[in-house]
Amino acid sequence: MTKQRKNKVREIQHLLSIEEMDAKLIEEIFLDADKFLKNNNVTNRCEILKGKTVCNLFFENSTRTQTTFEIAAKRLSADVINLDIATSSQSKGESILDLVNNLIAMGVSIFVVRHSKPGIPELIAKNIKNNAHVINAGDGNKEHPTQGLLDAYTIKKFKKEFSNLTVAIVGDIEHSRVAKSEICILNKLGTQEVRVIGPKTLMPHNIKELNVKVFESMEVGLVDVDAILMLRIQKERMTKETIPSKKEYFKNYGLNTERLKYAKKDCLVLHPGPINRGVEIDSIVADGNQSVILEQVKNGIGIRMAVMEKMKK
Amino acid sequence: MTKQRKNKVREIQHLLSIEEMDAKLIEEIFLDADKFLKNNNVTNRCEILKGKTVCNLFFENSTRTQTTFEIAAKRLSADVINLDIATSSQSKGESILDLVNNLIAMGVSIFVVRHSKPGIPELIAKNIKNNAHVINAGDGNKEHPTQGLLDAYTIKKFKKEFSNLTVAIVGDIEHSRVAKSEICILNKLGTQEVRVIGPKTLMPHNIKELNVKVFESMEVGLVDVDAILMLRIQKERMTKETIPSKKEYFKNYGLNTERLKYAKKDCLVLHPGPINRGVEIDSIVADGNQSVILEQVKNGIGIRMAVMEKMKK
Amino acid sequence: MTKQRKNKVREIQHLLSIEEMDAKLIEEIFLDADKFLKNNNVTNRCEILKGKTVCNLFFENSTRTQTTFEIAAKRLSADVINLDIATSSQSKGESILDLVNNLIAMGVSIFVVRHSKPGIPELIAKNIKNNAHVINAGDGNKEHPTQGLLDAYTIKKFKKEFSNLTVAIVGDIEHSRVAKSEICILNKLGTQEVRVIGPKTLMPHNIKELNVKVFESMEVGLVDVDAILMLRIQKERMTKETIPSKKEYFKNYGLNTERLKYAKKDCLVLHPGPINRGVEIDSIVADGNQSVILEQVKNGIGIRMAVMEKMKK
Repeated sequence: MTKQRKNKVREIQHLLSIEEMDAKLIEEIFLDADKFLKNNNVTNRCEILKGKTVCNLFFENSTRTQTTFEIAAKRLSADVINLDIATSSQSKGESILDLVNNLIAMGVSIFVVRHSKPGIPELIAKNIKNNAHVINAGDGNKEHPTQGLLDAYTIKKFKKEFSNLTVAIVGDIEHSRVAKSEICILNKLGTQEVRVIGPKTLMPHNIKELNVKVFESMEVGLVDVDAILMLRIQKERMTKETIPSKKEYFKNYGLNTERLKYAKKDCLVLHPGPINRGVEIDSIVADGNQSVILEQVKNGIGIRMAVMEKMKK
Repeated sequence: MTKQRKNKVREIQHLLSIEEMDAKLIEEIFLDADKFLKNNNVTNRCEILKGKTVCNLFFENSTRTQTTFEIAAKRLSADVINLDIATSSQSKGESILDLVNNLIAMGVSIFVVRHSKPGIPELIAKNIKNNAHVINAGDGNKEHPTQGLLDAYTIKKFKKEFSNLTVAIVGDIEHSRVAKSEICILNKLGTQEVRVIGPKTLMPHNIKELNVKVFESMEVGLVDVDAILMLRIQKERMTKETIPSKKEYFKNYGLNTERLKYAKKDCLVLHPGPINRGVEIDSIVADGNQSVILEQVKNGIGIRMAVMEKMKK
Repeated sequence: MTKQRKNKVREIQHLLSIEEMDAKLIEEIFLDADKFLKNNNVTNRCEILKGKTVCNLFFENSTRTQTTFEIAAKRLSADVINLDIATSSQSKGESILDLVNNLIAMGVSIFVVRHSKPGIPELIAKNIKNNAHVINAGDGNKEHPTQGLLDAYTIKKFKKEFSNLTVAIVGDIEHSRVAKSEICILNKLGTQEVRVIGPKTLMPHNIKELNVKVFESMEVGLVDVDAILMLRIQKERMTKETIPSKKEYFKNYGLNTERLKYAKKDCLVLHPGPINRGVEIDSIVADGNQSVILEQVKNGIGIRMAVMEKMKK
């Protein structure tokens, strides 16, 4: 089946958000990721992007995310250029476009872009010359589509179907691009019920438009869920009005063994990493047998390979 | 013709300056660059430097220049080591030589060297052991030979011959290594007239020895030129005595649509990048149809591949 | 012989210290290094680690050591990920383990670890999941096993046997992980006499248990030695109580031409680099014909290739 599929990989120009994807494209990426992850092996090298140059354009530092894209691109035999650009010295949209157009002139064909401002990957995609591709690797509090894809892919691997699942996303929903992408993809794939759990102060104003059920209490929101997606607490968000202290946060929203019991017995625990042990998740849960956190990381390589394969032209 | 040429690539030991090159070698590099750039394509990979290690030794930060050499080397299948060394921690010529000799012992065969002091690439070339190669990627205000090569190559692509051309270089001639390499290569290739335009305060003392015509006024100096090479304004050079302010500079020496009209109708506009929009060049001109700025960038990859090919032994 | 050996490379899980190695394994690594260094050539590329990912995990900055591992890994066709992690932002053992387990999930199979705290590579080796490998690239003042291996390998290349050799290690024995690894490997390989020379203030408390002869005077300690291993002076160790000044240190323990005459005529001079000319070693000696300092560097690539070859599964 893999061989047949190889010739049918649908091309895409950019991957900017889950919002603009349809369920069919998402399912296709899942099938392609299967191909790269088969035999539980992400170290198979292929030559799909041989001769192509992928540029990691990170205006916001993230060693871990950057490394996943670097590894995925190298597995496809691409050349990889890592550019860490402090937002300070490169803040105007205009000069970002000059930089990108220069890199295209040098032969870069895929840009993996992270920026602290929402919309920068889209801005680049709309203004660049030639046929270059843009992957959004996280833009402000807007979206982080490959994270959404790998989370949903991981759930699907264990639960097969979404139509009978209840999934809870826990934490700072308002400021989390991961939450945005997760809510969006879970709804697109037909999840029976998507819940968000967190303090009122960390809920976005438009939460009612997002097709989710809102809970303030873990003990109520976790009842009978099939998967819990924990969010990372951003320390810089901790102010008196939002999260008084790590201890306080863990007391109310930390995932520990007791709270996990409210969920279904075979409920999965996911986290986009890096985890803050003892802040949003207890070590016993993070390392427990319901945790699929490292599985997510492995799947992330396969998902990113599948996305980049669609940009081989 | 390409196939025949392949066997005839003349080897060179170092590329330290345009000054030490003869017109024949320059023309040869242009022909080799054609080979790498044919079909308008710089993404062709070949194995000319397979097994070789190229080291980017940048004592002065320049993400963009470093990336061009990295990409060019990888297209030739070389392994690339990027070393960014703050000048502060490595200032003595002696310890630079120890570092370089160590890297040669590790198997590095080509060094791409940028340093804020003039003469460092030459110093390295004269003192290293074995058969290693040095490419000057910019040394102080002395030379930046690959930039000179790619600028002249770009002019030649559009104008074919130099003997009937008038070319103007505009800006801070005194502190610009790019200007030095450009003046030198244009004269070596027999350009009919090379002009430099800029305030008196930014002209080198020996300007009369450089075989150029000096102009203080854009409106006079640009008359009937075939190509304009704009220089980047280095903000750190802006002092009361030289450039009072960006606004003032743009008023007197910025290239805008009106000024461009003084030149020939098909006059090319070049800039080594990164451009300061609204300081030395107006956006309308930079993005206009006479601008070959991105063409320069693309050609730069081909030129650097051609230079490194000559160092394959 | 090389071909036969190829099929017999013994696998190892980790390389954490010389202390845990036996002489047989050391000799095996030397034979494998011969294979990679034959014809005096370290630029031969082979595909032993093709498809594998090696991660340089440097919690303490060392451009030079990192580069040797990067080059060695690339010669074996591995993909290399360089992670420079400031100790400040990543200090807890727990989060290091999370980072490493994440990288394993991404497909990293060999970790090259440097850390300012002794024991971190061992901690990682004991706690990681799956089949990943750890190479200690220097942990605090404990060990730097590949440096010990390459030093002993270099001595062996010139002197053939250790049983009739007297070797002196000179400098700050107490704080030097290199000295620890050197003392250990020289004893394991049956060196007739291992001497340490340095001020009392820089001798470890347990020096008598290390099977070495202790000397305070260069003029006495160097008599009739076959090889001198100079240590690098760490400037941050210079305090009133230990090393009053560079000048003072050089006066008492610097290796110059006069002192070298106390040793045997064909005595080798080694130094792990980078050398402080005029502090622990005179330039005439460092660049003299008894110096094998650059030979060490070259051998270091072969040794590291040999070690990583043993981790190909």
